[in-house]
Amino acid sequence: MNVHGNHGKNRGHESEVRWIISSVIDDLTLSSLNAVNSYLSSVIYVLFIWAECVLYVKKVLVFFASMEWYCYALLGIITALMSFFMDMTVAKLLNAHQWLYRCLKGHHLLQFLCWTLYPACLCALSTSFAHSICPFSAGSGVPEARAILLGMDMPDYLSLSNLFAKLFGLICTLASGSTVFLGKVGPFVHLSVMVGAFMSRLHVSCRGGKQNQIEIRAAKGEMLVVASAVGVASCFGAPVSGVLFSIEVMGTHYSVRNYCPCFFAAACGAITFRLLSVCSTDQETIQALFKTSFSSDLPYQPFEIFIFVLLGLFCSILSCIYLFCHRWALRFVKTNKPISRLLATEKSLYSAIVAFLLACFTFYHSAGHFIASELTMKQLLTSLLDDTSWYSVSQNASALPEPQKTFWQAWNPPGKSYFQTLGFFITAKVGLLVVACTLPLPAGYFMPVFVYGAAVGRLVGEGSAYFLSDGISSAKSLINPGGYALAGAAAFSGAVTHTLSPALLALEMTGQCSHAVPALVATLVSNAVARAKHRPSFYDGISLIKKLPHLPSLIRYSTMMVLLNEMSLSQSDSLRLWLYHVFYFFPCLPDSPILLGTINKSQLREHLHQHRNEVIEVIMC
Amino acid sequence: MNVHGNHGKNRGHESEVRWIISSVIDDLTLSSLNAVNSYLSSVIYVLFIWAECVLYVKKVLVFFASMEWYCYALLGIITALMSFFMDMTVAKLLNAHQWLYRCLKGHHLLQFLCWTLYPACLCALSTSFAHSICPFSAGSGVPEARAILLGMDMPDYLSLSNLFAKLFGLICTLASGSTVFLGKVGPFVHLSVMVGAFMSRLHVSCRGGKQNQIEIRAAKGEMLVVASAVGVASCFGAPVSGVLFSIEVMGTHYSVRNYCPCFFAAACGAITFRLLSVCSTDQETIQALFKTSFSSDLPYQPFEIFIFVLLGLFCSILSCIYLFCHRWALRFVKTNKPISRLLATEKSLYSAIVAFLLACFTFYHSAGHFIASELTMKQLLTSLLDDTSWYSVSQNASALPEPQKTFWQAWNPPGKSYFQTLGFFITAKVGLLVVACTLPLPAGYFMPVFVYGAAVGRLVGEGSAYFLSDGISSAKSLINPGGYALAGAAAFSGAVTHTLSPALLALEMTGQCSHAVPALVATLVSNAVARAKHRPSFYDGISLIKKLPHLPSLIRYSTMMVLLNEMSLSQSDSLRLWLYHVFYFFPCLPDSPILLGTINKSQLREHLHQHRNEVIEVIMC
Repeated sequence: MNVHGNHGKNRGHESEVRWIISSVIDDLTLSSLNAVNSYLSSVIYVLFIWAECVLYVKKVLVFFASMEWYCYALLGIITALMSFFMDMTVAKLLNAHQWLYRCLKGHHLLQFLCWTLYPACLCALSTSFAHSICPFSAGSGVPEARAILLGMDMPDYLSLSNLFAKLFGLICTLASGSTVFLGKVGPFVHLSVMVGAFMSRLHVSCRGGKQNQIEIRAAKGEMLVVASAVGVASCFGAPVSGVLFSIEVMGTHYSVRNYCPCFFAAACGAITFRLLSVCSTDQETIQALFKTSFSSDLPYQPFEIFIFVLLGLFCSILSCIYLFCHRWALRFVKTNKPISRLLATEKSLYSAIVAFLLACFTFYHSAGHFIASELTMKQLLTSLLDDTSWYSVSQNASALPEPQKTFWQAWNPPGKSYFQTLGFFITAKVGLLVVACTLPLPAGYFMPVFVYGAAVGRLVGEGSAYFLSDGISSAKSLINPGGYALAGAAAFSGAVTHTLSPALLALEMTGQCSHAVPALVATLVSNAVARAKHRPSFYDGISLIKKLPHLPSLIRYSTMMVLLNEMSLSQSDSLRLWLYHVFYFFPCLPDSPILLGTINKSQLREHLHQHRNEVIEVIMC
Repeated sequence: MNVHGNHGKNRGHESEVRWIISSVIDDLTLSSLNAVNSYLSSVIYVLFIWAECVLYVKKVLVFFASMEWYCYALLGIITALMSFFMDMTVAKLLNAHQWLYRCLKGHHLLQFLCWTLYPACLCALSTSFAHSICPFSAGSGVPEARAILLGMDMPDYLSLSNLFAKLFGLICTLASGSTVFLGKVGPFVHLSVMVGAFMSRLHVSCRGGKQNQIEIRAAKGEMLVVASAVGVASCFGAPVSGVLFSIEVMGTHYSVRNYCPCFFAAACGAITFRLLSVCSTDQETIQALFKTSFSSDLPYQPFEIFIFVLLGLFCSILSCIYLFCHRWALRFVKTNKPISRLLATEKSLYSAIVAFLLACFTFYHSAGHFIASELTMKQLLTSLLDDTSWYSVSQNASALPEPQKTFWQAWNPPGKSYFQTLGFFITAKVGLLVVACTLPLPAGYFMPVFVYGAAVGRLVGEGSAYFLSDGISSAKSLINPGGYALAGAAAFSGAVTHTLSPALLALEMTGQCSHAVPALVATLVSNAVARAKHRPSFYDGISLIKKLPHLPSLIRYSTMMVLLNEMSLSQSDSLRLWLYHVFYFFPCLPDSPILLGTINKSQLREHLHQHRNEVIEVIMC
């Protein structure tokens, strides 16, 4: 009984356990079914919402895209979003790399591998990705955008696949950091132009073909000009310099009709970009990208303007050297057989090798500690724009706050003075920059030049702070090398690109109005020298090598143009048409003696000889 | 013997005296002759040197004028010199008036006479001088300069006599101070354009007629565009806004070829102007004209951007009211019989009466102490741009430093709060400004509008500082009404003139980059509202009344333009020629659908009806 009872009890237990288990299983099944059910339903719900959202977004987009001004605003906002998220991704990747590099402290070989393989892999990835998706996405894109705005039909350069290839490639390029030392402005102008072309197509389809072909073409041209302004504006949060860039780089004639849209879209882009930074970081309000705080009571003494003029001259001479090396390198890569064969077949390998070599050079234990290679480009610029003179810092370097101390240590490696590092930086970077420019991947060439110019300016500024410390009473504390770095950056990048907008860009990037006159003076002087003798600008050089139509200095062709314009319109029509087909001549203003197009004297003579019968009589009359 | 001896002695004495006298006379004659001689020789010498100098200066001028870039530099420097010496003269005259007014303290009648007769006399003088020398020198001159740049032939507006008349008249107008409340920008653009035309003539004569007619016309057009940029730049020392002004106000198409000359000449003008101020005053270095020192750590909080948008809206509404009143007043003056008769015969009398009435209103003991009329325009702007909130100042006003205390007392008369004075200022000044705009003398209308906008901005800023002092923790100390004044000035003047360059001008004038985004946002919003429904801008309004060709909002005419552009050139030639003669149609870009000219729909219909045979067939094809 007891046993039985026990047994029964056991049995009862067993059944109880079984019941419990079965009920648990049931429960589990039910709950799992429920879970699956709820999961499925939630998935469906999410999908539904997603579809709704997509439809709604599409609806909103279509609604907005049907109105021109919303298109401009959207263009600005989309570009700014791209710019912001690209910056964020790049910053995270760079941080990860720096963290890994710091972790490997003490293991020289591992550090070397980490330092060299990371940019090599990224550059190879960028190149292969860009070339496998869209081979047109390599390079800066500004010369191509310029050619498109001039009227050339290049649909491949405006496709969506190109946009994605360029976007991803650019992230990889930027993430390889200051080793490869490339920027983002040029590709961003191109990206923005692509978004603009997309918006323009959307706008036309939303308007339901109510416009005729001429109107559509004009609207597209307008949108692309606006997009080029937006590109610069949302890259640096600098709307006015974006507008100036679109005026001076993108054509021979600027329609004032585009002026307001340009400003509006650029302001939308810049404000969105800056507001996103405010939201994502602990920044309290909208500030300049590389905010400086120069003393505004006595930013510089009047006699310093002469030093700024000298700085402009110095920058222009350096820019001529740089441009010459750049053109030579581009031509060398094209003509040298082994390299051109490698570039034709194995672009990624070439990129990897070049990036590896660059990284070897910039590794801390080779030449890296002479050129402050452990700083990122942003840190480099911040350190160069710092307003306290390194001469005064050198007295009590240990009392510096944290970020400044790192910068100071980077520019003052043990056993070297900052003059030596700055000088070596300026000498070595010309070569490194020129080599990096031959990489066949999406990359900008403005920012490196800007940082380089800042280094040149800093050297001159530190030099004058050092030498004028005794001559002029209390001048030592007054001379601000940061201001020289600002002016030098503007002057050098202005001389390389043959533009004046960098002067304003430098002010907008640093939020520093007090140095407006020095920056402008230095930029004007450097431009005057750099443009003399009709030397081609950086963009012109690329256009020449790639045989794109470009806007040369106008004076060289004035005789030709006047010749054309003195004829009546109907008489010159045949000539113009012929020239149009042969040399991409773009008739602009037949009534006034302004650029019709470009042609070399020798080419013209040759062709005139060939087509003597049809043309010469037209020119003679 | 003794007597004789005495006599002989006397005689000897006499002869001695005589001898002395004669010798003295001789000496005197000699010396006087010498003096006359030396005086004459020195006069001759001076005349000789003077002639040499004139010849030398002419030689130098001719040498420089033969080279284009020197011409641009000279243009900038000459305009800046004019601007500087005008400012100095006006400041001296204003100081003299203020000194006299203070001396008469206690004598109300004498003070009243001093306050009212001074501007009345000056305005009458300005009007009579301007009209006796050159009747075309009255008004702002910007619409006329625009018409000249559009291609209209108006040689009277570019003559040297006009230049002198405008210069002298403008000094008188400005010296009448904040009673008449007129500025100098517009006339200065006109003056600069006149100097530019002169330089262009000089350049052509120095080149010895080596160019053909088309080149000369193009070079002249270029010089005038450059000159318009220089006008603004050397008026405020703001080169970049000068360039933007020349882009957006002066034409429909901007040739990028003019961009560098514009920047160069504007920089020359602005730097000369600022350097002259450095030399003449105790200023240590080149600074902004109305330098402010806003805190750059937290210039504004992100939510304040919405208040700036509201400020832009408010400014645009006020600008519409102002423009409506302005057009109404101009039309009223033209159509009202007694006034138009008075204006036709006795312009000086009209000016004197209007100035007297304005002065009566602004006299301290009538309504003057509600509108801070004892401050000059410069002091008004400085007081409005001050960065300390008046709310916080009101707690300890007695501890203020001297200039700020005067400003504070002017805006806070006994028994009134600053809200009341600001409100009354904004209400009353619309009327006063509109009345002042009818005066037939050389005067600018931009600066008054700018100051008015600053007052509007200050009111909004003080309002938000007052109301947000409790709501948001420590926001009271953060809100900077000076920033609102800056944005308001940019927004209001932008809305009145339908331009965006005031946003940059405000930044360049105050040397304040931190408020770039608010100023731009407010200006964009105010422009968007002000331009809606194709309302004419301030310049357009004057052009309409004066029947000058003007650049309207382009959208209104797009159909017409596309119509014209779809035709082939040869087909539309007859139509274009006909339109050119009837409505000042200016063919610009026949190949693309961009402004050919302007025409009202009703006018077009009527004329099409009249010329049916010749025209309709062209349009139909």
